[in-house]
Amino acid sequence: MEKILASLITIGDELLIGQTIDTNSAWIAQQLNNIGVWVHRRVAVGDNKKDIVQALDEESRDSHIILITGGLGPTADDITKPVLMDYFGGQLIVHEETLHAVMGFFESRGLPVLQRNVDQARVPDSCTVLFNKRGTAPGMLFHKDGKIYVSMPGVPHEMKGIMEDHVLDIIRDQFQTPALLHQTLLTSGMGESFVAERIKDFEAALPSSIKLAYLPNFGLLKLRLTATGKDKISTAALLSEHFHQLKAMLEDIVVVDEDIAIEQVLGRILKEKNKTVGTAESCTGGNISRMITCVPGSSVYFKGSVVSYANEIKTTLLGVKESTLQTFGAVSEETVKEMVTGGIKALGTDYMVAVSGILGPDGGTPEKPVGTVWMAAGDANEIVTIKHHFRYDRARNTDMASVAAINLLRKFITR
Amino acid sequence: MEKILASLITIGDELLIGQTIDTNSAWIAQQLNNIGVWVHRRVAVGDNKKDIVQALDEESRDSHIILITGGLGPTADDITKPVLMDYFGGQLIVHEETLHAVMGFFESRGLPVLQRNVDQARVPDSCTVLFNKRGTAPGMLFHKDGKIYVSMPGVPHEMKGIMEDHVLDIIRDQFQTPALLHQTLLTSGMGESFVAERIKDFEAALPSSIKLAYLPNFGLLKLRLTATGKDKISTAALLSEHFHQLKAMLEDIVVVDEDIAIEQVLGRILKEKNKTVGTAESCTGGNISRMITCVPGSSVYFKGSVVSYANEIKTTLLGVKESTLQTFGAVSEETVKEMVTGGIKALGTDYMVAVSGILGPDGGTPEKPVGTVWMAAGDANEIVTIKHHFRYDRARNTDMASVAAINLLRKFITR
Repeated sequence: MEKILASLITIGDELLIGQTIDTNSAWIAQQLNNIGVWVHRRVAVGDNKKDIVQALDEESRDSHIILITGGLGPTADDITKPVLMDYFGGQLIVHEETLHAVMGFFESRGLPVLQRNVDQARVPDSCTVLFNKRGTAPGMLFHKDGKIYVSMPGVPHEMKGIMEDHVLDIIRDQFQTPALLHQTLLTSGMGESFVAERIKDFEAALPSSIKLAYLPNFGLLKLRLTATGKDKISTAALLSEHFHQLKAMLEDIVVVDEDIAIEQVLGRILKEKNKTVGTAESCTGGNISRMITCVPGSSVYFKGSVVSYANEIKTTLLGVKESTLQTFGAVSEETVKEMVTGGIKALGTDYMVAVSGILGPDGGTPEKPVGTVWMAAGDANEIVTIKHHFRYDRARNTDMASVAAINLLRKFITR
Repeated sequence: MEKILASLITIGDELLIGQTIDTNSAWIAQQLNNIGVWVHRRVAVGDNKKDIVQALDEESRDSHIILITGGLGPTADDITKPVLMDYFGGQLIVHEETLHAVMGFFESRGLPVLQRNVDQARVPDSCTVLFNKRGTAPGMLFHKDGKIYVSMPGVPHEMKGIMEDHVLDIIRDQFQTPALLHQTLLTSGMGESFVAERIKDFEAALPSSIKLAYLPNFGLLKLRLTATGKDKISTAALLSEHFHQLKAMLEDIVVVDEDIAIEQVLGRILKEKNKTVGTAESCTGGNISRMITCVPGSSVYFKGSVVSYANEIKTTLLGVKESTLQTFGAVSEETVKEMVTGGIKALGTDYMVAVSGILGPDGGTPEKPVGTVWMAAGDANEIVTIKHHFRYDRARNTDMASVAAINLLRKFITR
């Protein structure tokens, strides 16, 4: 069976000058992968006719499916629609359903409807309109030489709506896709090269239809096996066999055998044990709390947090002793231990994780350089601690510290 | 003067299956822009020789500078180095400085040095090594037909180190770059199409060397002017003239006339007024706190937060009355007002912002559907409130609510 290839074209100067981080591509790639389509190239070009046309030409060469995002807004910096009309032919007509929706959108908000909004309902008659439930710019589907081209707005939730409502079904209908399956193992406590060393015979013996990838993940390591094959059942069986071998070889460092984040792993454990948790954070500023609450349904096990950025809050809300802060400092094993004890009292939880450190760029001393982070996890009876030294910038240090803290708590609970 | 064009090539299957979001490209693009280099294409390809070679061929066609990231790790899924050696010729030699650093890296951690680590110090003799201070995979610089090619590891902080230590200087030395300048206005309170309508004459009259872009930003709107020209001074003057016109036309909705985030704007105001702030968060789960503390130096004005995810924490730590919760519910104007008052008491700050809502996917009711968020901002004397209804998914609703809350507080303080 032929491998079905897709290209993603992202249009917009804001991506090329670095003003926007492209999160659409990752999401689209995941969705296509789920239905057995392989994204083999992603291209970003500016708001520029020549570059857009060149990208369309090049991506049509090998790909069966060309998905285009961006450049469909109501303002004059958008040139995608005229370029597509040139490329695929046709003339602009009004799409009644979209026009109706645009009028409704503005009227329901008590806003006047401007000409530029009405113009969003104009589409080339060479396309099939993919109705956009979440915004005013419609998706557009074009066919040419057996390939399909879809143009969607770049606003993430609008793009996602059009993909889910239309595009995935259209692809499934039009193409016979091969099975393309992944299984992912999340590990903790061993570096990439040491893991590779341990499993090198396994890796060398993998059949050509299975690929192994190492994906460092904020101090943890993901290992991903990807299998391709004719049918889903035999491919899944082959993948499963190798995945189990891999898992058995890494049993001592496996966190979870699914592609889920560490905060989801923690959530499952807490749900299963019917226990609650909270956080007492200093340098991470609420990021651990944010990560835990990103998981839908976390209110079952997450009660809350005290972010004690100022030392006085460590004392007033978390009951850290003045003398502890004076003798050992805010970044110390003693302080994070008292933050756990005080946090459990203040928030009334079964477990607590606490973090205090210096994430940079300033605030380091010779004894406690930038990157020094103390963390503690525990319950009412027992507390474990660990000291980390992160060597990156403030944002990355925050992410690394947060993942490490959640992992410390996970290990404590499952010890 | 010729426009200096760059292409970014990102290598790695993990980007094509959506397991990783590409943040490197945005950072690199910003850096190149600062030195007057225009990124005109970004391409992502898999760990696959044919695709990498094709990308190198295509990007060499128009670009002067080709920057490659990814595919240089110590494990066997990395094929970039052999492909580059094929492409540029040469044979593998050991780079002594890198070898020394690799040995030191593992020895200082008490870890054995594996063959695969030592191999990272092998480089094609056709390249100039760009030493990587932050990791074990060196950067590599190749010259061909007057163009430069740089290969860097994909780990963000390692790539950033190599760019800052070597690449930007090399580009500045080799190319005469034109002036490429941006100025950005952050606005609040008016939709994209209405802003466009108000400034349409200005936009139509812009000289061809200045481009205007509209960038929606979590409920706020950024407007960016980009000017290109021969020399920096005359280009800056022309840009400044138009930027001031734009600013004057939008005076009533301007938040700030720089490309900074709303949390940085808030930080500046607080620093200037020598006041402190804290947050009392329910549904946002600490995200507002995290955003405020992302700004280096925020400890001067940020004291801390209470994340009261469970209702009992709203009562115990924030002093919200049981009767308020029972009569009006946790998602109500009365509750967020009491959260502000109680938060100021608990954290001892001058200002407080509080948020309580239902971000989805579950938890909505007919009276309070998913997306309903109440927020309040105030000081000891006065509190303002607003009710929002966000229509997106949980993650985006969280971001929109957080930006709106920070903006509400900003407006309260500067009222």
